[in-house]
Amino acid sequence: MFLLQTCRAGQIWINLILLGVSAWSTTGIHPASADEGMWLFNDLPAAKLQERYGFTPTEAWAEHIRLSSVRFNSGGSASFVSRHGLVITNHHVASDTLQKLSTAEDNYVRDGFLARSRDEEIAAPDLELNQLVSIEDVTDRVNSVVTGDMSASDAFKARRAAMATIEKASLDATKLRSDVVTLYGGAAYHLYRYRKFTDVRLVFAPETQAAFFGGDPDNFEFPRYCYDIALFRVYEDGKPAEIENFLRYSASGPKEGELVFVSGNPGRTQRLFTLDALKFLRDKYFPLRLQRLYRTEILLQQYGYNGEEQSRRARDELFGIQNSRKAYTGMLQGLQDPTFFANKAEQERKLRDTLRQDTKLRPFVEGWESIEDVIAKREKEYDKVASFSRSSRLYDIAETILLMSSEDQKPSEERLREFRDSARESLELDLFSPAPIYDDLEQVRLADALALLVEQRGGDDPLVAQVLDGKSPQERAAELVAGTKLKDIDTRRQLAKDAQAVAADQTDKMLQLARIMETEYRQLRDASDEIDEQERQAYAKITEAKVAVEGTSGYPDATFTLRLAFGTVNGYLENGQPIPAWTTIGGAYEHESAHNAQGDWKLPRSWHDHINDVNKTTPLNFVCTADIIGGNSGSPVVNREGEFVGIIFDGNIQSLTADFMYTDTVARAISVHSSGIREGLRTIYQAPELADELGR
Amino acid sequence: MFLLQTCRAGQIWINLILLGVSAWSTTGIHPASADEGMWLFNDLPAAKLQERYGFTPTEAWAEHIRLSSVRFNSGGSASFVSRHGLVITNHHVASDTLQKLSTAEDNYVRDGFLARSRDEEIAAPDLELNQLVSIEDVTDRVNSVVTGDMSASDAFKARRAAMATIEKASLDATKLRSDVVTLYGGAAYHLYRYRKFTDVRLVFAPETQAAFFGGDPDNFEFPRYCYDIALFRVYEDGKPAEIENFLRYSASGPKEGELVFVSGNPGRTQRLFTLDALKFLRDKYFPLRLQRLYRTEILLQQYGYNGEEQSRRARDELFGIQNSRKAYTGMLQGLQDPTFFANKAEQERKLRDTLRQDTKLRPFVEGWESIEDVIAKREKEYDKVASFSRSSRLYDIAETILLMSSEDQKPSEERLREFRDSARESLELDLFSPAPIYDDLEQVRLADALALLVEQRGGDDPLVAQVLDGKSPQERAAELVAGTKLKDIDTRRQLAKDAQAVAADQTDKMLQLARIMETEYRQLRDASDEIDEQERQAYAKITEAKVAVEGTSGYPDATFTLRLAFGTVNGYLENGQPIPAWTTIGGAYEHESAHNAQGDWKLPRSWHDHINDVNKTTPLNFVCTADIIGGNSGSPVVNREGEFVGIIFDGNIQSLTADFMYTDTVARAISVHSSGIREGLRTIYQAPELADELGR
Repeated sequence: MFLLQTCRAGQIWINLILLGVSAWSTTGIHPASADEGMWLFNDLPAAKLQERYGFTPTEAWAEHIRLSSVRFNSGGSASFVSRHGLVITNHHVASDTLQKLSTAEDNYVRDGFLARSRDEEIAAPDLELNQLVSIEDVTDRVNSVVTGDMSASDAFKARRAAMATIEKASLDATKLRSDVVTLYGGAAYHLYRYRKFTDVRLVFAPETQAAFFGGDPDNFEFPRYCYDIALFRVYEDGKPAEIENFLRYSASGPKEGELVFVSGNPGRTQRLFTLDALKFLRDKYFPLRLQRLYRTEILLQQYGYNGEEQSRRARDELFGIQNSRKAYTGMLQGLQDPTFFANKAEQERKLRDTLRQDTKLRPFVEGWESIEDVIAKREKEYDKVASFSRSSRLYDIAETILLMSSEDQKPSEERLREFRDSARESLELDLFSPAPIYDDLEQVRLADALALLVEQRGGDDPLVAQVLDGKSPQERAAELVAGTKLKDIDTRRQLAKDAQAVAADQTDKMLQLARIMETEYRQLRDASDEIDEQERQAYAKITEAKVAVEGTSGYPDATFTLRLAFGTVNGYLENGQPIPAWTTIGGAYEHESAHNAQGDWKLPRSWHDHINDVNKTTPLNFVCTADIIGGNSGSPVVNREGEFVGIIFDGNIQSLTADFMYTDTVARAISVHSSGIREGLRTIYQAPELADELGR
Repeated sequence: MFLLQTCRAGQIWINLILLGVSAWSTTGIHPASADEGMWLFNDLPAAKLQERYGFTPTEAWAEHIRLSSVRFNSGGSASFVSRHGLVITNHHVASDTLQKLSTAEDNYVRDGFLARSRDEEIAAPDLELNQLVSIEDVTDRVNSVVTGDMSASDAFKARRAAMATIEKASLDATKLRSDVVTLYGGAAYHLYRYRKFTDVRLVFAPETQAAFFGGDPDNFEFPRYCYDIALFRVYEDGKPAEIENFLRYSASGPKEGELVFVSGNPGRTQRLFTLDALKFLRDKYFPLRLQRLYRTEILLQQYGYNGEEQSRRARDELFGIQNSRKAYTGMLQGLQDPTFFANKAEQERKLRDTLRQDTKLRPFVEGWESIEDVIAKREKEYDKVASFSRSSRLYDIAETILLMSSEDQKPSEERLREFRDSARESLELDLFSPAPIYDDLEQVRLADALALLVEQRGGDDPLVAQVLDGKSPQERAAELVAGTKLKDIDTRRQLAKDAQAVAADQTDKMLQLARIMETEYRQLRDASDEIDEQERQAYAKITEAKVAVEGTSGYPDATFTLRLAFGTVNGYLENGQPIPAWTTIGGAYEHESAHNAQGDWKLPRSWHDHINDVNKTTPLNFVCTADIIGGNSGSPVVNREGEFVGIIFDGNIQSLTADFMYTDTVARAISVHSSGIREGLRTIYQAPELADELGR
């Protein structure tokens, strides 16, 4: 599934820091070929589209698609599909919310959900949806504060302050969420303004058995037969929001060979990484990440064996981990192929030779040398633990409250970036979320995180001794979870606004632990910020060099912001066998039979109940050549007329190397077909009103 | 399950080298308290038994138990239970053989097996069973060849040669398998002579659902309800072997509080490891081992998803890995408990203080200092890969044949130890085994091992480049498996006896790979041998010091050779709840209901077919305080009269720290009860002849 490879929205930056890429420093500039490209909406490849497909996107067309597109801050994409605020995304993007809404009695993840009327629509606990309203170039304002003689640390702080100031001013003036996005590695900074929806209600989700038919074994494979959709509705002032820009529904979906567009939020690519940076990913970062994923996958499997309820509690996180594990395995396999590196090396050598031969261009070579230095620094810190926040929600809350209590004493523009004023509303939505927290699961995850700390630093390390406080990881985890009041939302609210109360509270065990970790955390964070700044400057140089030599601006690496990709609906050859572009609803039943309805190849009861009345020739899933990546899950696929023809939910296994390089020989994006969606709602889920509302 | 933590018998030494313990250097001497101790049969704790239990083992009693005991060289224990060669062990010890005998059509691992007559008994492909016939002290002969001025490397070679010479002479003189075993870390060397059985036939095995009822979640837990037994019969000259010493069968099994004995082959303990050595295990070795286990567990799970047949092929190995993962997790948790280390540190400090205060004893402190140095050396090499033989059976064969072709040019006593003449028969039994090799599974495992090599050394490493030969790990693995003739047993036989043919064969891909790895492998092996010798000398010194201070010889650390443990049948308190010493057959049905017969809590059909006629009050599993560890699986439990009262199959989770320290507060050994075994055979499996043959 093409989910963003993170757990919680509030932690995206940690994930990216671990990757060695700060959230606003991801970079790259690409002379695109074929259907390659994740294009900025304010810089669409009009000439290329005209040349290849005889199609020129008008400004009105692009604006309509942009305003119809929706970002799920929990890590996916979506679109408006009715004037009454109906939003369509994937089941696996909704899964985080379904999990938070579920209880031992009502398991919406497994069993799905259908609101028979608007009254029955259920409010999501902490969802924030974003609609991209405008883009403004603020490059000069961000760059003007950094002077050539500044240290990396000072430059980082100056830039951070400039960005926070711009965002705050924009928020105050427009009341819109305002984010400065770093593009082309610091060669460009754009201010993105979003309309925010935080009253988001669940309308419909199918069963996991339908949405994730074939399970982990079929994940990232094609042919596929997944009904991977979910419907939400955004509300304003207690009423369904009136949405001007929404996607009309195509009568028939796409045809073979048809040009289609994907509008969504690809999370992260590393296409312009230097050879050194890619080697770091291959030899250090990905192996470590996979080690951790294996470990947590086994841990959650084991926890789930304790019973049906435990299995339910761990389900969404286990799914995310399995999905990441499979995705990273594919990426690492791509990187471990010697021919991939030989090609990359040859490209880089040529470019650097060209630079060296030109007196004016020669200084740009420093960009690569600086990245070499950046990588050497990252190798020293990439496997350090700075926080338990990825393992324990209670720790995550404690850490946020503790950091906030001192950050809030500073002016907004000097704070750690996530604590700036303009981001406060989104931060609080997450921090005060009523989503359930399960003590037993917290304990298991935290005990494992504590054990990992012992393993990483050795049992004799002074920080380890302080953290364990003379107890085994298991005993200490039990004590920490039992000894915190942070499960209570009112307590969180009180502490979040009262720094003195935080300082005065010396008894809450989880706050104590966050306090023990704080110095280490801040040191690591500072070091990381400094390296990020060096990286930003280096990639800006490399970007300039590439523009000078290759003479094109192309598109920047993905940044989990809105992009437009395009491609055609086409099958491919795999080991000499033609793989057709489509599957059908009937194919799902056949696929089930072929696997004797074993394991994850078991369709839910609803599908069997309607096996005779559903139209089996209706297309269910299809593939196209559009350039997508994790984060694109839930992106609408539209045709030239801007009509909804499908929804992205995955890429095939061959597409996983798209992080580093686009290809269209066998790599494909996978979508649920618009006709399949409607037929499913109408016949299988007996929801004709919803089927009719789509596109109206 | 208390299986020896290794995969294949032929590879035990690799496993132990990875652990930083050579197979013949494991050591330790223990002033035993309570029911502690894995006692040598030629040095039983008669005084202690008399004092605690008023029982003195006579020489005849001990000899009978010893001769009734059987070692499975595949990694477990067993005993003779009839005069006609019937051998009882665990299903999970037999599992390796069941897997090798199974096909897509006959899945003996899952479905079990029952020979209705002797004609139907099936020959195991490569089983070697050992009966310990005599023990001789050869300490002086082994030690006399090592002089004080020898380098560690020379000392190692001299000792290895002396051992090989003693073994060869014994083999020639007695025709018995002859192994010199290093005890007390080189303070003692004993020559063990075994009667060998290699015509071993499968008689009975229950279904996995009965043997491993509760599966991975219940593993290492108690209360338990496992029918974990299997029956084999040893043959000689095509007829059931006549066995003089076999265990009579107890009429009723053990009573609460009764003294019982366990005769089996504990694999390995580290009870006398120094603090430094234990820290190495805690901070380096166990974390690494667990990382690898997580990785392979996920890999085999994924492979198994490809279909029922794949799942069957991977089953035994996956079970072994899950079992090891759970065992190592328990051990590491024990080591990560700060109180454990505080106790160990205090003990060691006291002992060393005593030594320092005595001029004569002071030089012994060097032992600890030398271990410190040993550990520093091990830290540099413990994560190096020297071989793919643990991942690929075909590679294992190639490596063995290649090494053998040059080792065999040397005199027996100068060869790598596994190639000495006296071990040749056992080596060939393994090398020429007709056990099935599955190309697809080989390929998946080898691709992963190749990928691991890239991760460990980096994609730019020269050896990696040579190994991959310009291909991705997946492509290369496919090429290697397709490009070897070693699946053919006749080819193996021909190459094994013809060094010139091996040298001449430059086309076999797997031999090519073994050749690429050979230099590296030998370097690492030499370095490891040298460190082992240093360790041996250091622990011999520590042992002497302890005897001098504590004045007792105790028992040596486990060495996968026959030991006698003792204890009483007793329940325990867990979180304040009393856990009774017994479970019953009826309890198994209740346990199934309590888990809604979900997952691994589903009893097989045979148990349901006889739910009404089986005697539900019959004891099924019981616990006792005997001191056991991995390798003890299948050990007979006998009473004072030397009668069979049960069979060890596991320890509870609290016993897993027995590697480092014995306790009897809550740690327990778990057995199948003799009465349960008989009732199961008679009623559930409808095999009254077998039930009657037991003990006669």
